[in-house]
Amino acid sequence: MASVDVPVALLGYGTVGSAVDRLLREQAADIERATGHRLRVVRALVRDPGRARDQGPPLTDDFAEIRDDPEVAVVAEVMGGLDPAGEYVLDLLRAGKPVVTANKQLVARRGAELFAAAAAAGVQLRFEASVCAAIPVIKVLREALVVSNVHRVLGIVNGTTNFVLTEMERGASYDAALAEAQRLGFAEADPTEDVSGADAAAKMAILATVAFGSRVTPDDVTTDGLDRVQPADVEAAREMDMTVRLVGAAALTEGQVDVRVRPALVDRHHPLAAVEGAFNAVMLQGDAIREITLEGPGAGGVETASAVVADLIAVVGTTGTGFLQNDACWRELPRLAEGELASPFYVRVDVADRPGVLALVALRLAAHGVSIARLVQHQAGTHATLHVVTHEAPEGRLREALAEIDALEETRGHASALPVVSDRGVAELGWR
Amino acid sequence: MASVDVPVALLGYGTVGSAVDRLLREQAADIERATGHRLRVVRALVRDPGRARDQGPPLTDDFAEIRDDPEVAVVAEVMGGLDPAGEYVLDLLRAGKPVVTANKQLVARRGAELFAAAAAAGVQLRFEASVCAAIPVIKVLREALVVSNVHRVLGIVNGTTNFVLTEMERGASYDAALAEAQRLGFAEADPTEDVSGADAAAKMAILATVAFGSRVTPDDVTTDGLDRVQPADVEAAREMDMTVRLVGAAALTEGQVDVRVRPALVDRHHPLAAVEGAFNAVMLQGDAIREITLEGPGAGGVETASAVVADLIAVVGTTGTGFLQNDACWRELPRLAEGELASPFYVRVDVADRPGVLALVALRLAAHGVSIARLVQHQAGTHATLHVVTHEAPEGRLREALAEIDALEETRGHASALPVVSDRGVAELGWR
Repeated sequence: MASVDVPVALLGYGTVGSAVDRLLREQAADIERATGHRLRVVRALVRDPGRARDQGPPLTDDFAEIRDDPEVAVVAEVMGGLDPAGEYVLDLLRAGKPVVTANKQLVARRGAELFAAAAAAGVQLRFEASVCAAIPVIKVLREALVVSNVHRVLGIVNGTTNFVLTEMERGASYDAALAEAQRLGFAEADPTEDVSGADAAAKMAILATVAFGSRVTPDDVTTDGLDRVQPADVEAAREMDMTVRLVGAAALTEGQVDVRVRPALVDRHHPLAAVEGAFNAVMLQGDAIREITLEGPGAGGVETASAVVADLIAVVGTTGTGFLQNDACWRELPRLAEGELASPFYVRVDVADRPGVLALVALRLAAHGVSIARLVQHQAGTHATLHVVTHEAPEGRLREALAEIDALEETRGHASALPVVSDRGVAELGWR
Repeated sequence: MASVDVPVALLGYGTVGSAVDRLLREQAADIERATGHRLRVVRALVRDPGRARDQGPPLTDDFAEIRDDPEVAVVAEVMGGLDPAGEYVLDLLRAGKPVVTANKQLVARRGAELFAAAAAAGVQLRFEASVCAAIPVIKVLREALVVSNVHRVLGIVNGTTNFVLTEMERGASYDAALAEAQRLGFAEADPTEDVSGADAAAKMAILATVAFGSRVTPDDVTTDGLDRVQPADVEAAREMDMTVRLVGAAALTEGQVDVRVRPALVDRHHPLAAVEGAFNAVMLQGDAIREITLEGPGAGGVETASAVVADLIAVVGTTGTGFLQNDACWRELPRLAEGELASPFYVRVDVADRPGVLALVALRLAAHGVSIARLVQHQAGTHATLHVVTHEAPEGRLREALAEIDALEETRGHASALPVVSDRGVAELGWR
């Protein structure tokens, strides 16, 4: 088959854009072998085309030059931000140009609208690089697991917080761990987006939308950040052979969607517990496959660029076949009601060290139907700390029980609760 | 885009074949949404078409009925075995029909020939299900990592041996662990294919062929089985915060290919160490991606069928574009010379408990340029066991040193050696 020339345009020519250009040039032979196509960047949109550059494609600051160029076969949006990137991508799709985007916020916030525009125009929108950089989780979800009825997605999708939690597990304080992450370039000077869980929520919104075919935006994701994690939680997790991770969880239960990001205690034998440092991992659970976990670096300029290039290759490899042009976000599923999601939980509560207190706490849990799998009491002078792991219970019921426990005169401060992630069942957890 | 009818034929209608048929029927709506195509099984080749079946497609025992039927758009080979499956697949490709196969031995032994036939006919041959069932490692290698220059593939690709090793780590004997694997259906009555490493070697041959584009057959894979693992190795691994795994390793070093399957000590913090029970995992290391690990169930009828269906979907999603028709096995790379592969090693040797013995052993290693990272001596009555972890060294040099150590009059029996897998460097390994 004769080689086909595929002119590519870039929106943006920063770290990712220039790496896309470089990969397309350096790996041209591999790409041509795999696809029968030669991809080359013919133009890039930048703010200041006059700025001197050593090499690279012709630059422009006029978006219309790209949109209206009939030669341009596919466009990669690597400029970031919601505005004007969103309008540019919509314009391109409406003009019949396939688009590849690395823009997490854009896909998370306006994905449904973009998918609809792509379907209406009969062109593809691909967005692998918008979630976890080079880890091909979108491709696997959309292409390998079409018949798997994926009903649950668990993810460690923020490297900064995973690095901080890994360091805390090794004994560092939160502040020291965060400072080290900043020193190593894993965390921004203002780490709010990461430590608040907002970055993870955007990624989980995209994953949930793709996995369940129903629109989920970051505003739909119940999100807790690292401020919910105390050193005592990290220590208790270690004692119980678990580890604290910021876990994104998207579940489809009886036709209802629930998506959350929050710190959780993860069983040491669960695949997500093995994800250390700034790495990401996503576990996909479905009917035919049981579970598949993908792990790797979830950030980085070259890593992101390699995902953009893979998407460009996939666009040319499937154009004209109808593949993946109608699958994303094709239904509107209801949200699971607040408090309905069931999980096992870890509960920690400080109490006065008196006989009968343990029974009082256990009774409050039992009164709300929350069953205890394990309970350990640690003495410390005049007070004691109760560590409880419950069997699976709806979160609303646990909250009701905790409110009553907080109101006991024996309770000091507030009971804290974190979900437990264990596919073995909590009764099987180790407890040193 | 109007829906396209895609008649599919099956070679074989056993566990996998009937599951493919069922998945195509039950998930028809999802498939049509993703691809714009309706896939349906129109015929299946079986030995005895007269045997009563409740449902399913028309059966035939005449291969020509499938090959020569112009209606059949794509064929899934799920019959297994080298003969006649190999001739059938070749005939189909030559007749211009794309083929999806789940046949590990066929792809491992005759892959290069089949890829060439597919390329010559301009049709696709896909084989995701031939390696690790539903884990989409072939898709990720061929489609997501085109520009990544994957230079190393590490895999736990045999669930039976991983189950046995996991149980041994928990204290079971080899015999008890194997019996339990047989009871649970993870191991055959005759487990030779698994415990000898032959099954893993076939899978690593396929992975190496795809990753490096050069023909590797099972005969090219240096293979050791579980008989090389002693309980003392498992115990020593635990003491050093490592774990014993049967690791397949394919490496491309300065244009030379090396593929092995053998027991290794894996650093507890390495992603492969977290793979427990009958699960499989494959780690892909490349330039642009650093490393990506895929984990999941590596066997099972429905899991295998879901990979076959994903391949069928991919065939219809890429037909006519030239995608993946020339990429597999396009060059012939030389093998790395025996003994040249470098690795850190764990060495265990029983010696007489006399002053100076440790120095003698260390001197023999040093004489061959093998540098010691860590060394522990355990006393046991009149003898002692030396546990040594070396820095990276060519295996040939280590073998020479071990031969000299075996010849020392202080040595009892033979020194044993297993490679160490640690991406942190052996000096960083824990040692309790």
